[in-house]
Amino acid sequence: MTAASMLSSCSMNVGVSNPKMASKASACCLLNRPMSCSKSILSCGLFGISEKSKLLCRASALHVESVPSFSVGQKFQFDDVIEAQQFDRETLSAIFEVARSMENIRNNSSGSQMLKGYLMATLFYEPSTRTRLSFESAMKRLGGDVLTTENAREFSSASKGETLEDTIRTVEGYSDIIVLRHFESGAARRAAATANIPVINAGDGPGQHPSQALLDVYTIEREIGKLDGIKVGLVGDLANGRTVRSLAYLLAKYRDVKFYFVSPNVVKMKDDIKEYLTSKGVEWEESSDLLEVASKCDVVYQTRIQKERFGENINLYEEARGKYIVNKDVLKVMQNHAVVMHPLPRLDEIEVEVDSDPRAAYFRQAKNGLYIRMALLKVLLLGW
Amino acid sequence: MTAASMLSSCSMNVGVSNPKMASKASACCLLNRPMSCSKSILSCGLFGISEKSKLLCRASALHVESVPSFSVGQKFQFDDVIEAQQFDRETLSAIFEVARSMENIRNNSSGSQMLKGYLMATLFYEPSTRTRLSFESAMKRLGGDVLTTENAREFSSASKGETLEDTIRTVEGYSDIIVLRHFESGAARRAAATANIPVINAGDGPGQHPSQALLDVYTIEREIGKLDGIKVGLVGDLANGRTVRSLAYLLAKYRDVKFYFVSPNVVKMKDDIKEYLTSKGVEWEESSDLLEVASKCDVVYQTRIQKERFGENINLYEEARGKYIVNKDVLKVMQNHAVVMHPLPRLDEIEVEVDSDPRAAYFRQAKNGLYIRMALLKVLLLGW
Amino acid sequence: MTAASMLSSCSMNVGVSNPKMASKASACCLLNRPMSCSKSILSCGLFGISEKSKLLCRASALHVESVPSFSVGQKFQFDDVIEAQQFDRETLSAIFEVARSMENIRNNSSGSQMLKGYLMATLFYEPSTRTRLSFESAMKRLGGDVLTTENAREFSSASKGETLEDTIRTVEGYSDIIVLRHFESGAARRAAATANIPVINAGDGPGQHPSQALLDVYTIEREIGKLDGIKVGLVGDLANGRTVRSLAYLLAKYRDVKFYFVSPNVVKMKDDIKEYLTSKGVEWEESSDLLEVASKCDVVYQTRIQKERFGENINLYEEARGKYIVNKDVLKVMQNHAVVMHPLPRLDEIEVEVDSDPRAAYFRQAKNGLYIRMALLKVLLLGW
Repeated sequence: MTAASMLSSCSMNVGVSNPKMASKASACCLLNRPMSCSKSILSCGLFGISEKSKLLCRASALHVESVPSFSVGQKFQFDDVIEAQQFDRETLSAIFEVARSMENIRNNSSGSQMLKGYLMATLFYEPSTRTRLSFESAMKRLGGDVLTTENAREFSSASKGETLEDTIRTVEGYSDIIVLRHFESGAARRAAATANIPVINAGDGPGQHPSQALLDVYTIEREIGKLDGIKVGLVGDLANGRTVRSLAYLLAKYRDVKFYFVSPNVVKMKDDIKEYLTSKGVEWEESSDLLEVASKCDVVYQTRIQKERFGENINLYEEARGKYIVNKDVLKVMQNHAVVMHPLPRLDEIEVEVDSDPRAAYFRQAKNGLYIRMALLKVLLLGW
Repeated sequence: MTAASMLSSCSMNVGVSNPKMASKASACCLLNRPMSCSKSILSCGLFGISEKSKLLCRASALHVESVPSFSVGQKFQFDDVIEAQQFDRETLSAIFEVARSMENIRNNSSGSQMLKGYLMATLFYEPSTRTRLSFESAMKRLGGDVLTTENAREFSSASKGETLEDTIRTVEGYSDIIVLRHFESGAARRAAATANIPVINAGDGPGQHPSQALLDVYTIEREIGKLDGIKVGLVGDLANGRTVRSLAYLLAKYRDVKFYFVSPNVVKMKDDIKEYLTSKGVEWEESSDLLEVASKCDVVYQTRIQKERFGENINLYEEARGKYIVNKDVLKVMQNHAVVMHPLPRLDEIEVEVDSDPRAAYFRQAKNGLYIRMALLKVLLLGW
Repeated sequence: MTAASMLSSCSMNVGVSNPKMASKASACCLLNRPMSCSKSILSCGLFGISEKSKLLCRASALHVESVPSFSVGQKFQFDDVIEAQQFDRETLSAIFEVARSMENIRNNSSGSQMLKGYLMATLFYEPSTRTRLSFESAMKRLGGDVLTTENAREFSSASKGETLEDTIRTVEGYSDIIVLRHFESGAARRAAATANIPVINAGDGPGQHPSQALLDVYTIEREIGKLDGIKVGLVGDLANGRTVRSLAYLLAKYRDVKFYFVSPNVVKMKDDIKEYLTSKGVEWEESSDLLEVASKCDVVYQTRIQKERFGENINLYEEARGKYIVNKDVLKVMQNHAVVMHPLPRLDEIEVEVDSDPRAAYFRQAKNGLYIRMALLKVLLLGW
């Protein structure tokens, strides 16, 4: 099968169903982005067409000649980013490779113009300034622009009773990609099912926050140099923390990972995750000795005890909060190559004295969120 | 009268009174936008100079040679967009022509740079996310940028007692065009009287929302192919809906239009509109039979019963709300070429099952708002 | 010492400590901005390296040949803008020169691209729409872009107990410069001590608001033509007004300045300022005769009596508020070259009838804020 025939077959399949992205594709080709266009052709030809195929075939026949002859491996084009589990090892690896290239863009020039002319809508039904600014920075660093609403729940038509689906249908008319933060689990999936443009889940209630999970795994790889064979101590609120649950799911895709759970009794890791890990052959154990765990681990992943989950039981909160603190004593027993991570914001579960230690990786971790989000935006809008 | 002499006459008249726009004009010419510049010269020469003339004569003598020889018809340059009634048929037609060209910009490239370097301030004294995002998308799709405030009433100096006029005088120092949403009828007119830059009314209390009215008429023309001789059924809350009132005013400018009013008793069309239509020779009748009306009309314009207008009388609201619903039964009697429109947000006055029918035009209508707003921004900032 | 050796010495000193700004610098040079780069080299070579040196040496060896041979005088590069007093006369004069060049950028082109690729984060812990829009307009007029949060106090991680320092460490990962508005005095200094990127104080509680102070002095120089030997009447709330206090501090740097304080008894100028002025040899006197003071002054600087400072004592507020009003009677006795200034917003302490007098400088003053902020952003991000 030649590149040209691959192209025409996919044009026929998806060209009509998504005219908007198709026209974007022509624009992209006119602007001389043969690299990304050609890769898309290849992945489209070799691995078939996903059900939704918002983006898959963006290239015009004019560029078939420039298709390079290397294989792009097992990467699949994805249409939306809804949950961490949607990515297999190969796709994670490919996303991380794009993220690393984003670090170079960030540091070596006054900004890329890769996404010039693209508009991202940040549709936030509950405020999350950190996540919002990170996505908006990512989009702008790539030359794109942003429509933003910080409090869609109160301000938008939602308060008049409009469904999420109707809001999505309107906002997709104004933008090229939607970053959705919502208070209801499953909202992102509903939005993606409605939208003809890509949707990224930036947190939907107690559900998923996949870009946070991706940046955690990316940070471990960057800091430790590998993902297979690592020992990870998860510390703090393991019952309510969306972050640690997603991390457990994702790391289960790697070989010989071992987890240590260190948490106050009231916020212990729930059985569903333990069972999932066991079913995947991932070793885990619970411990109440932070120092011993810290001495063995590559990663000490500390989390905040979330006061808002305790309601009236302030006593329980105060008790849980003070129990496992990362301080200089913990640093002393940690190995030289190991790191401390934290999804932020932190209160006093990591003492400020730790910040100056080179193994304190949490601010680098926050910055990695920028590169991961740049990578997701790039892949969703331009393909691999 | 030659083009050159026309130019000099208008330069003398308005060049001094508005130095800011004049300098913008030079910039525009330096950037090689001879088309729009030349049209301005013509309209300026042939039709005189409006009282305010914020923009009228923006071209420099350098471009007089490139003035095309066709007439631009009866279009007048306008300085602000305050109310739907300010536009005559010819100007509406000209705006729609620009809006259609905006559809091409949107679909065929990765964004225009037409308004590069221009700043729009969205000064919203009450939140309206849909309208705000639509205007901001329009500005950014044309390469312009945006200063935004979503809640000027609470956050700005207004809370310290500053007058709207003082706020406008400050904000016009920071931007090139102001899009104002205000809670008081007449606010947009006061702002426009103060500002030396163009002002667009994005809704002022129970008053006007002209870009909504324009997009409605634009949508009817796009969907039905004509505006003369159409039959329009206005359904739902005809007493409080700013939208249907404006639509009635605007369509009265066309020939042989007939209106059908279908509404619960508590929210019937008010006498002022009825009298206005009668005075303009526009036929109208009231009906309680939605199916019969739907079978005759080119446009079934459904609106939301606005709960917030009923206060304590929830019973009346519930009764009114369920009375006229657009569903598959209505679709069955509608003609093939007819369409269902709605200003959105909708609750259940149009059932979701209607969405997939090609005659469901409301999401296309929302998107047309983008093109209309792009057109208004283009004409106000660059001329025809 | 040759320009080339100066360059290498400073590269060695600061190149490593702040790689981010260094890489920005290379980008700047690649983009052909030799003027600003070369000036930086000079100032770096001649006047040494400041302790923080976020920016100082941004140029690469490639541009050494284009270093002009003139001296840049006594200007020191500054890293942050924290308080008005940090600037000496020479630096003020240099900032004003840059601000004047910004007026040309604003009026003669469709926007500069000087800061293209730079991102400013406006991190506002309390709303101040006027200040925020002014900074954001400044950044965008120079081709830069903006991440914005209007209500960081309620929306951000601050509400979960995150320290300002942690927030700054996160936000500096997303942006190139932070404009901070905070409710606590001293917050800006703490932020600057933490950040590796420049911080501008946009008001920290009862503390400082240096860009307002700079624009006031800039306005006096633009309107009166000099700063030495001027007579300034400060009118209204002299006890609580951050503005008049900063102005007193700044003007004390000039020769033969005389102040007149005209204020209701409850809001008289406090002793610390009076003592400071006396210690600097600046003449001042208190007066209750606004007309007499107005007839002698170059500048009548009116301020709003701040109702929010009076709490329950509404009577005292009402009495103070009506006491000294600038109206046509005041204009009548003022000299032709004198001006009326006001930091805005104003209520009725300046009557609207004054607005049309050419000596009413307050809206020009507001606009000057744009030029001052453009200048600060330029100098902090690109150097002199």
